[in-house]
Amino acid sequence: MPERESGGCYDAAMSKGRMEAFSDGVIAILITIMVLELRMPETEGEATLAALAPVVPKLLTYTLSFIYLGIYWNNHHHMLQAADRVSGGVLWANLHLLFWLSLVPAATGWMGEHHSDSVPAAVYGVVMLMSAIAYTTLQGRIIACQGPHSRLRNAVQGDAKGKISLALYALSIPFAFAHHALSDAIFVGVALIWLVPDRRIEGVLGNHEPV
Amino acid sequence: MPERESGGCYDAAMSKGRMEAFSDGVIAILITIMVLELRMPETEGEATLAALAPVVPKLLTYTLSFIYLGIYWNNHHHMLQAADRVSGGVLWANLHLLFWLSLVPAATGWMGEHHSDSVPAAVYGVVMLMSAIAYTTLQGRIIACQGPHSRLRNAVQGDAKGKISLALYALSIPFAFAHHALSDAIFVGVALIWLVPDRRIEGVLGNHEPV
Amino acid sequence: MPERESGGCYDAAMSKGRMEAFSDGVIAILITIMVLELRMPETEGEATLAALAPVVPKLLTYTLSFIYLGIYWNNHHHMLQAADRVSGGVLWANLHLLFWLSLVPAATGWMGEHHSDSVPAAVYGVVMLMSAIAYTTLQGRIIACQGPHSRLRNAVQGDAKGKISLALYALSIPFAFAHHALSDAIFVGVALIWLVPDRRIEGVLGNHEPV
Amino acid sequence: MPERESGGCYDAAMSKGRMEAFSDGVIAILITIMVLELRMPETEGEATLAALAPVVPKLLTYTLSFIYLGIYWNNHHHMLQAADRVSGGVLWANLHLLFWLSLVPAATGWMGEHHSDSVPAAVYGVVMLMSAIAYTTLQGRIIACQGPHSRLRNAVQGDAKGKISLALYALSIPFAFAHHALSDAIFVGVALIWLVPDRRIEGVLGNHEPV
Repeated sequence: MPERESGGCYDAAMSKGRMEAFSDGVIAILITIMVLELRMPETEGEATLAALAPVVPKLLTYTLSFIYLGIYWNNHHHMLQAADRVSGGVLWANLHLLFWLSLVPAATGWMGEHHSDSVPAAVYGVVMLMSAIAYTTLQGRIIACQGPHSRLRNAVQGDAKGKISLALYALSIPFAFAHHALSDAIFVGVALIWLVPDRRIEGVLGNHEPV
Repeated sequence: MPERESGGCYDAAMSKGRMEAFSDGVIAILITIMVLELRMPETEGEATLAALAPVVPKLLTYTLSFIYLGIYWNNHHHMLQAADRVSGGVLWANLHLLFWLSLVPAATGWMGEHHSDSVPAAVYGVVMLMSAIAYTTLQGRIIACQGPHSRLRNAVQGDAKGKISLALYALSIPFAFAHHALSDAIFVGVALIWLVPDRRIEGVLGNHEPV
Repeated sequence: MPERESGGCYDAAMSKGRMEAFSDGVIAILITIMVLELRMPETEGEATLAALAPVVPKLLTYTLSFIYLGIYWNNHHHMLQAADRVSGGVLWANLHLLFWLSLVPAATGWMGEHHSDSVPAAVYGVVMLMSAIAYTTLQGRIIACQGPHSRLRNAVQGDAKGKISLALYALSIPFAFAHHALSDAIFVGVALIWLVPDRRIEGVLGNHEPV
Repeated sequence: MPERESGGCYDAAMSKGRMEAFSDGVIAILITIMVLELRMPETEGEATLAALAPVVPKLLTYTLSFIYLGIYWNNHHHMLQAADRVSGGVLWANLHLLFWLSLVPAATGWMGEHHSDSVPAAVYGVVMLMSAIAYTTLQGRIIACQGPHSRLRNAVQGDAKGKISLALYALSIPFAFAHHALSDAIFVGVALIWLVPDRRIEGVLGNHEPV
């Protein structure tokens, strides 16, 4: 009966739905406006295969960021599936995550343009690190809303993947200046770690009726 | 039984849902196309930390506008949660709000580019003032639809925050010409006032089943 | 029991919902990417009020097109509220409407840039005319799906506003070359005719439970 | 009772709904940002009909790609209507499809700009081929989730249209270098094959209650 015990949390199918829809919208737009950085070269005369060469590093960076945003969308989706309650604080933590994700296209474009420079790779690392911190914060706020024995809390117990990612992103920033290839390797490596959807949450969800 | 008493208002879960979805879509797009103004500098040769310097004021202005659009999304969401009925007039008042919000990215980009000039700050103030007026109008139309004892009417009684914001935005316009820093302070100050989600509405909602 | 009598039409809440959501998405994006044409002038030195002068005709054209897209969204919404059945043909007629609407931003930007030339005004008229034809076609396909005594058929009987708009748009094209101001007057005038949401449909809906 | 038998598939109305919403968002954005490539010529002096001439091939390419994205949206919609279960793998196969579709605007802009060159047509063919492969893969993953006697499996049995399209796209790539007009003919021809919504699926759905 007392619908809001812990910090203004409430069972709000609609709030959750609209937060998901808004997040989906923002992520969908981010994923697609990144493409605007891919504009084909404006060559005079015939467009040849050679004209495509400068597009290749941009395309690789675009692919990497597409996968990252896809991972965020996927994990965000699975996390909210396991959540029954939200709060005003959760909505703001979500906007905070979207803020950092919104910087991904600019960072991607810069790194794609200057793929052998240190600063763009470091900036990309900062954006990745802050996004991951924002995601962890959001996860914490959502878990705090669910009460002490929530499915979500059990699902992300320990959260080794999250902690490893945070550490690797933090390392990628100095690495960008020292061994440039190492920071690139980190970005690819962390993406691989997360490409698999969060089996922990899926596993726990499996014992319950689908949400 | 008489479904439409006051000015063509009707109980329309679907109308409300689609108005929310459309507003979410527009706000999500606005928040993300603002990022397009953030494009990293196109430097010749190596991309250095120094190349990032001109991006800093743009990033701060972007952050401010991101927070403003986030506030509008959040308050819009809470306001509609407390509303059960809409009307044709409400749909148009909503579009009117979206019109002024749609000018935020252009005003943001101009202020970020010319952060020490008066006119861009004054233009930003005008867009903020008109958005706030449009929001107040929308709130009035929605309340008029809910009947005399609606939750929403009780929730926003007095509306001190709204009135203070309107007054401060109006002040920001002359201030932009007189003491430039004062108009900046107003923009940051009003954002802080609203960063807290509308506890008035949440408080009243708390006594009812979540919508 | 026979769910599809007339031309592959079916009761499909989900199809209708997804068609609405997709249309809302496209219209929301169109309305917001038009803003990209509004980019403030990139002045060297101080940004003054004088720098805003060339933005004024663009802003007026933008406002006009914003209202037009708002009208389409609003009428589209009311039309689908009154519809219970869709078909594959309806989905394509809807995409056809979205195609012409998608040309509005480009036509708007061109007319805003060259506000005293004939050809951009004529192009704007063509886009408006084709959009209106596409809307009428969509309306016809939807009515055909609803069966002989549908609410929607009663609601739009005669459809004087639709026919007048089509005639005026058609006139705006030669007028753009003859008396430029006349075509502008038509664009403003037709917008005013439609600014009022479709009372005919709202009136008929009023006698039924809200959809 | 055992909700997930085959490869982590589960009955998840919400997962399916959010995947649809996300896909709709991405496709709606792609369809509309393609318009940004259509920017009217920035002529000095009067804007004349002659100024429109270079826009014509861009408009035709835009129309072709608009139809392709419309076909993908439509078929995607019909396919998911017939699906009751999704899985983590389905979500990723869907993102994979969206990745290739996201390259359509860039490929479209390049082909529209260089409509008589071979390489842009070949690139367009590659994007089309990869999108079609991604769609086929997604279809396979979804069918694998539905169990052995699903409506969807029956609906797409044989899948002649899909196989023919794949073959034609593959042919369009060498044809772009040999007989340029042939690859254009393939792109138009395959669009015509698919313009009709998937009657196979609609036919099977007709015997069931609408999903």
